[in-house]
Amino acid sequence: MILRIDRWGTELPPPSDPDPQGAKAVQELMGGRFGEMSTLMNYTFQSFNFRGRASARPFYDLIANIAAEEYGHIELVAATINTMLTGATPVDDGRAPDAALSHLKDLSINPHHFLAGGQGALPQDSRGMPWTGDYVFSSGDLVEDLTHNFFLETGARNNKLKVYEMVEHPAARALTGYLLVRGGVHQIAYARAVEHLTGADLTKMFPTPRIPTSKIPECQPHIERGDHRRLYRFSPDDYKEIVAVFNGPHPETGEDLIVEDGPPEGAEPNDLPPQPAVFAPDYAPEEITEIAKKLRKAVA
Amino acid sequence: MILRIDRWGTELPPPSDPDPQGAKAVQELMGGRFGEMSTLMNYTFQSFNFRGRASARPFYDLIANIAAEEYGHIELVAATINTMLTGATPVDDGRAPDAALSHLKDLSINPHHFLAGGQGALPQDSRGMPWTGDYVFSSGDLVEDLTHNFFLETGARNNKLKVYEMVEHPAARALTGYLLVRGGVHQIAYARAVEHLTGADLTKMFPTPRIPTSKIPECQPHIERGDHRRLYRFSPDDYKEIVAVFNGPHPETGEDLIVEDGPPEGAEPNDLPPQPAVFAPDYAPEEITEIAKKLRKAVA
Amino acid sequence: MILRIDRWGTELPPPSDPDPQGAKAVQELMGGRFGEMSTLMNYTFQSFNFRGRASARPFYDLIANIAAEEYGHIELVAATINTMLTGATPVDDGRAPDAALSHLKDLSINPHHFLAGGQGALPQDSRGMPWTGDYVFSSGDLVEDLTHNFFLETGARNNKLKVYEMVEHPAARALTGYLLVRGGVHQIAYARAVEHLTGADLTKMFPTPRIPTSKIPECQPHIERGDHRRLYRFSPDDYKEIVAVFNGPHPETGEDLIVEDGPPEGAEPNDLPPQPAVFAPDYAPEEITEIAKKLRKAVA
Amino acid sequence: MILRIDRWGTELPPPSDPDPQGAKAVQELMGGRFGEMSTLMNYTFQSFNFRGRASARPFYDLIANIAAEEYGHIELVAATINTMLTGATPVDDGRAPDAALSHLKDLSINPHHFLAGGQGALPQDSRGMPWTGDYVFSSGDLVEDLTHNFFLETGARNNKLKVYEMVEHPAARALTGYLLVRGGVHQIAYARAVEHLTGADLTKMFPTPRIPTSKIPECQPHIERGDHRRLYRFSPDDYKEIVAVFNGPHPETGEDLIVEDGPPEGAEPNDLPPQPAVFAPDYAPEEITEIAKKLRKAVA
Amino acid sequence: MILRIDRWGTELPPPSDPDPQGAKAVQELMGGRFGEMSTLMNYTFQSFNFRGRASARPFYDLIANIAAEEYGHIELVAATINTMLTGATPVDDGRAPDAALSHLKDLSINPHHFLAGGQGALPQDSRGMPWTGDYVFSSGDLVEDLTHNFFLETGARNNKLKVYEMVEHPAARALTGYLLVRGGVHQIAYARAVEHLTGADLTKMFPTPRIPTSKIPECQPHIERGDHRRLYRFSPDDYKEIVAVFNGPHPETGEDLIVEDGPPEGAEPNDLPPQPAVFAPDYAPEEITEIAKKLRKAVA
Amino acid sequence: MILRIDRWGTELPPPSDPDPQGAKAVQELMGGRFGEMSTLMNYTFQSFNFRGRASARPFYDLIANIAAEEYGHIELVAATINTMLTGATPVDDGRAPDAALSHLKDLSINPHHFLAGGQGALPQDSRGMPWTGDYVFSSGDLVEDLTHNFFLETGARNNKLKVYEMVEHPAARALTGYLLVRGGVHQIAYARAVEHLTGADLTKMFPTPRIPTSKIPECQPHIERGDHRRLYRFSPDDYKEIVAVFNGPHPETGEDLIVEDGPPEGAEPNDLPPQPAVFAPDYAPEEITEIAKKLRKAVA
Repeated sequence: MILRIDRWGTELPPPSDPDPQGAKAVQELMGGRFGEMSTLMNYTFQSFNFRGRASARPFYDLIANIAAEEYGHIELVAATINTMLTGATPVDDGRAPDAALSHLKDLSINPHHFLAGGQGALPQDSRGMPWTGDYVFSSGDLVEDLTHNFFLETGARNNKLKVYEMVEHPAARALTGYLLVRGGVHQIAYARAVEHLTGADLTKMFPTPRIPTSKIPECQPHIERGDHRRLYRFSPDDYKEIVAVFNGPHPETGEDLIVEDGPPEGAEPNDLPPQPAVFAPDYAPEEITEIAKKLRKAVA
Repeated sequence: MILRIDRWGTELPPPSDPDPQGAKAVQELMGGRFGEMSTLMNYTFQSFNFRGRASARPFYDLIANIAAEEYGHIELVAATINTMLTGATPVDDGRAPDAALSHLKDLSINPHHFLAGGQGALPQDSRGMPWTGDYVFSSGDLVEDLTHNFFLETGARNNKLKVYEMVEHPAARALTGYLLVRGGVHQIAYARAVEHLTGADLTKMFPTPRIPTSKIPECQPHIERGDHRRLYRFSPDDYKEIVAVFNGPHPETGEDLIVEDGPPEGAEPNDLPPQPAVFAPDYAPEEITEIAKKLRKAVA
Repeated sequence: MILRIDRWGTELPPPSDPDPQGAKAVQELMGGRFGEMSTLMNYTFQSFNFRGRASARPFYDLIANIAAEEYGHIELVAATINTMLTGATPVDDGRAPDAALSHLKDLSINPHHFLAGGQGALPQDSRGMPWTGDYVFSSGDLVEDLTHNFFLETGARNNKLKVYEMVEHPAARALTGYLLVRGGVHQIAYARAVEHLTGADLTKMFPTPRIPTSKIPECQPHIERGDHRRLYRFSPDDYKEIVAVFNGPHPETGEDLIVEDGPPEGAEPNDLPPQPAVFAPDYAPEEITEIAKKLRKAVA
Repeated sequence: MILRIDRWGTELPPPSDPDPQGAKAVQELMGGRFGEMSTLMNYTFQSFNFRGRASARPFYDLIANIAAEEYGHIELVAATINTMLTGATPVDDGRAPDAALSHLKDLSINPHHFLAGGQGALPQDSRGMPWTGDYVFSSGDLVEDLTHNFFLETGARNNKLKVYEMVEHPAARALTGYLLVRGGVHQIAYARAVEHLTGADLTKMFPTPRIPTSKIPECQPHIERGDHRRLYRFSPDDYKEIVAVFNGPHPETGEDLIVEDGPPEGAEPNDLPPQPAVFAPDYAPEEITEIAKKLRKAVA
Repeated sequence: MILRIDRWGTELPPPSDPDPQGAKAVQELMGGRFGEMSTLMNYTFQSFNFRGRASARPFYDLIANIAAEEYGHIELVAATINTMLTGATPVDDGRAPDAALSHLKDLSINPHHFLAGGQGALPQDSRGMPWTGDYVFSSGDLVEDLTHNFFLETGARNNKLKVYEMVEHPAARALTGYLLVRGGVHQIAYARAVEHLTGADLTKMFPTPRIPTSKIPECQPHIERGDHRRLYRFSPDDYKEIVAVFNGPHPETGEDLIVEDGPPEGAEPNDLPPQPAVFAPDYAPEEITEIAKKLRKAVA
Repeated sequence: MILRIDRWGTELPPPSDPDPQGAKAVQELMGGRFGEMSTLMNYTFQSFNFRGRASARPFYDLIANIAAEEYGHIELVAATINTMLTGATPVDDGRAPDAALSHLKDLSINPHHFLAGGQGALPQDSRGMPWTGDYVFSSGDLVEDLTHNFFLETGARNNKLKVYEMVEHPAARALTGYLLVRGGVHQIAYARAVEHLTGADLTKMFPTPRIPTSKIPECQPHIERGDHRRLYRFSPDDYKEIVAVFNGPHPETGEDLIVEDGPPEGAEPNDLPPQPAVFAPDYAPEEITEIAKKLRKAVA
């Protein structure tokens, strides 16, 4: 089971200039083969399917706990896309029969952001192809699953860097800066796990792709806070044996790896404004507001 | 963000006679269009994409909170499938070059349970087709999203009932008994939300399919505990406004609907044994046990 | 069985300025999850699979008859797309080795409109993803199928409105104006059916999305003709019991709902000109004309 | 537009011994690449997209008219599958909590026939894979489209013969006997069209696969009635120029090809009984019967 | 088994102005239903599955040998795409944290060329949809497989002509000029095979589409070299019986068809430069160069 | 370009008892995510897309050369499946209207082996899902591509071992015995390449899955011949720099790794008999034999 906390793992800037083409690109980090849906679901299924947990608990705890963090990552990718789409149609107006979407028709957008969805994130990649369960690898063989996870994080890092290079919108940059640091921690964690089990030292491949995270300005605040060497324990009372795997020196900086109990402080989510042109949350949002007021009063 | 709790939402029986053909059928409740991956991801994306939360909070809280419960449901479906697959190959033996899977070759199984996975659950449906992001409906239009959710829960109830009729394995029965009760609560919740917003009384359709949950013996313990009229709040401090929507009488029994703070007590997960024939967690699981022991000692 | 009539359900304007980017968007109304392929095939399969027709005939007739109308809708969406693509390459020239498609290369088009097809409609959505049989819901449970159909029409109305807002081409506007009115009739029909069976009054949700059809100028001529409250009976002699379901007042206007025997008068299809640059119907269309002339003479 | 006639193109036997495994195989004729969904949708889209109809009318009429017949073919395939699935669960009983589907669990069935659908046909192939819009070929180039159609009918004939060999259920045999004869007519029609346009004589390939239809006993009644050389005109007033293409001798028998105005007489559809175990049309079908009675009385 | 030769089937120009939008279009010739992946894999599987080879060897040899040539065609399509993508980011610079991909964001590109891949070709079509094994037709029936192959080559010719018309980049023109000539030879080969088996003369359809290859300037050098009537034998010692099928006059020019032992001379592949912005082959390619030098020295 | 040699990489036994259920399982090694289509196409595209070949030639040669070997592997998997399907219908008889496929209807087979294909191999996995281009990883980043390839070979080894355990048919055992040895060589090759580039020693993971190849009896003849430490150079004159990467001791046996010029001697392919019930190569194969005879005589 999970408990959900209505906070984001990191702060994102509020909506500024909309960037629907950029939002299309950022979808790769959501629904691509190496997107956050993939990291979330790979680790989630591997933890569900883990056999012999009692005797291999440090590894079970590691996978289960990283899975928990990944939920916060799909949340952030969604928030980024939603931020970038905000204002692509008039925030307070633009209702049909206005042609409020006509300026978008000729752009290289994901048409589902507007025609199917309500200027919201989708479980699709940058091509508009849906995420598929066939992206999940859960062989049950622990060494293989961990090798896969290391490779998955490597591919994810590659994709984050390229989205960084393609999309300059402040929300996308805040997102990729954060995900590069956190994904780097997961890369280390899986490399350490493989090393403990087989002796193979995957950290020698670091950084891969061969650009140090420290070169990316948007990673700096997170590195300064120590988030590049910290594994949060996303649970009130469980997954405590991650310390048995996640320890030793950081492969690039030599600093100690550390485990922290509980989630990061994170940030208050931004409440994104309605987009009535796409009926989100309604063609006349004020009606909903009115109803909600009454419902609250009734139970006050 | 989420916190993960290493407990199941309800108790499941330990492995008994394996039932790989039944496990194939139960996959519909995982990765089918109306399976738990779909309820989880529909509500999750709708909550991520919710615009104007502050003024419509009761509805946002409802969707976000039910999303949180659904994570526990994919966990239970996975646990059920894993339980049913346990023992389909020898638990302590059967390693290659033994022909430990040859007795499965002619059966109507999902071959990926054995050839791709390690006798573990997959994000696939009963045909073996992967779950796809195109199953997610997130229009941003609140009335539409809620109507969809009501319909989704109805379809899910239909599929649970049929899996119940097809699969008699004790784990499958425990699962469907539980999910029918919990899904019924979500059906009510979404019907109430639609009613609050539009006045349309969807509860008049209950029960749909037209068989009362109370007729299903495996639902009884949950009904007796009151779980058919209780919405748990899966969060330490958030989603408190669900009470503004989830209230009034239960459409079938007339009892009061109630909101409970925190998750259900649930149950300790069963630790399923290794299946060395499929190398889960290894061809020689005792090696991993040994390594884990040393790692624990090192940080003790 | 069907009989086919070589007329369109409504008039469409002849080709004017081509709009290949708009044509890409209109594809959502053809092959999207809520497009006309989906309404056609959902109702068609539900009618094929209807069990116990004799004793539930009014409902069977309703679904079967609406299915018949939907065929005319995929025809109109195709005609619209074909109209919008006409002239995107030279109508009388532009044959290879001319670079007659080069001006299209950098636009946000569906490349299959030109590279795979001959400037013609495709069973794809606005992303270029093919329509899939998994969009068909046919549970056999009458209440569920009808609930689904109501939801499907709601989603379809949402998508039509957004295509309306995005695409100003006269053909697209004529199409969406017409489909909004006709889809509204189907929404009412399914709502009435659900009400008859369960008592739940779905018409309280109308209009959904919350914009009255009467606000859309292109809907006016159809409303004036009474097409917003008229169910045509698309059959020489069958499906007569639809009157038992489709009756009572229109939920928005209060006028009587009416059933009309036979199809609408409709309009003569426009004969769209060849596009030799894509070899439709040939690189040298005059050869075909010549052959056809001879064939006709031979049987005259 | 179409008019729908509530009759089948040919008679099918009433339900006898159920054959769910056979029904799985027959799905290939529905949703396979060469199934009737494919012939229907290929010709339908080609007719929608036909450019320069006036001057090439005989060919337009041919494609449009055969498209109309194919609708009747998906109807018959569906009816066959529904017939074969009838009785696979108890016709009058078997409602949950009975384990009415448990005897099906170990069989090689399409699980969606029972878990997703209500013992009804699906737009899927024999593997359970959905029909996809990417099976439609509509190049706009008339010679190519016709060549494709000839090839499509050839592949369809191959698949029908193999389903014939695999499935002995009387409904499947009645279906394949009929479809082989009718598909043979379409093969001839497209071969003649290609010959008229290019001079290439495809009828020299007949029969392809190399088994004469006359060898199949279930084809005999249709051959005796002359249906192997008759093209029905499925329209009240249109598509009259098919006679300009469909003429001359039958390639195998030498008899004259003939065009008949109007559809075949066909047969009254069998009304298949409810299957309450899968809630089709309801868990308690008699409730619907009661409601329908009242609705009819109200408008009598 | 195969032996691979590190040469291209024809010369391609070196990188000039990049054309990522054109590269997106050219993907249709790689991963489209009628692309070179399809011709390669259709003939490859048909040759693998050929039964009774000894007694039908001329036909087996024909299919197997053309399959071998197609490998060279996917190689050329890939080389063309790679050439067109070269320089779309700075060849010597542009590493993150530079925004080296930002100018691409708003263009109608295949985002996977940059975000997933390293400015390299993909097994996708012009929509970005992956090639699928369901494009392979291998019925085992020789006449049908050959008919299919003739149709496949016809569709391929259509697509090549349209890509020719859309993309003027010199590499795309060199590619399509070459493929049109070589595909034409395969069209003839399969037509001849069908004729030998059935007497049906498909060459009467030539050219199809109805534009003679000789009209395309970029085909001229290949026609002058006689490559429009020459079937290369891509094997040291096998497939010698192709001469029994591929003979007689060329259907358009009347010249003799000829078989040549061995592959064409072809051309040295161009070595395309690194694109460090997408880390191909590395963020710092000079490191790899250094390592490679040492490795070579070690074995020198 | 390639040259094709009409020999198999290893000997396979002739058809014995047919095993269509086993053939379904073996398809995983053909079209699964880790099947031979995947290894072939991953390395092929990576070699096509390799940038800066001159200065990194040892790595280019390695990938390009292993790609060449993989073609021989899809050939062997196909041959195995074809062998196992031979005799599943009568070899000399069983033509329609016989019910020659009826005994297969209730078995857990891939229905496309019989209904779509002619008892031949398909580019599908064990579920019947088609291989897809999205299984190809070609990032352009050399370290990542090689890491992927190591992981891919590991997953492939896992799947081969499980197919070994499930399918005891002599052809399947001969296949898996051979592929395990050859795949092991590729695992080593990619591990060595990663080590040369980064210093990370992946061979410490060997064997993975943790069962030594030497334990598998069917691997013995290949190990005795030294094929577990030998990389063949599949080219007349190219890819010679593989020696710079593939050298040093075998990670499990300590023996020297060796490169051999040219392909293995291999074996003569078995000519599998016709299966007239599925029209492969014809309903009346003797007709083809007769025609082939005449064609040969004509050119003799």
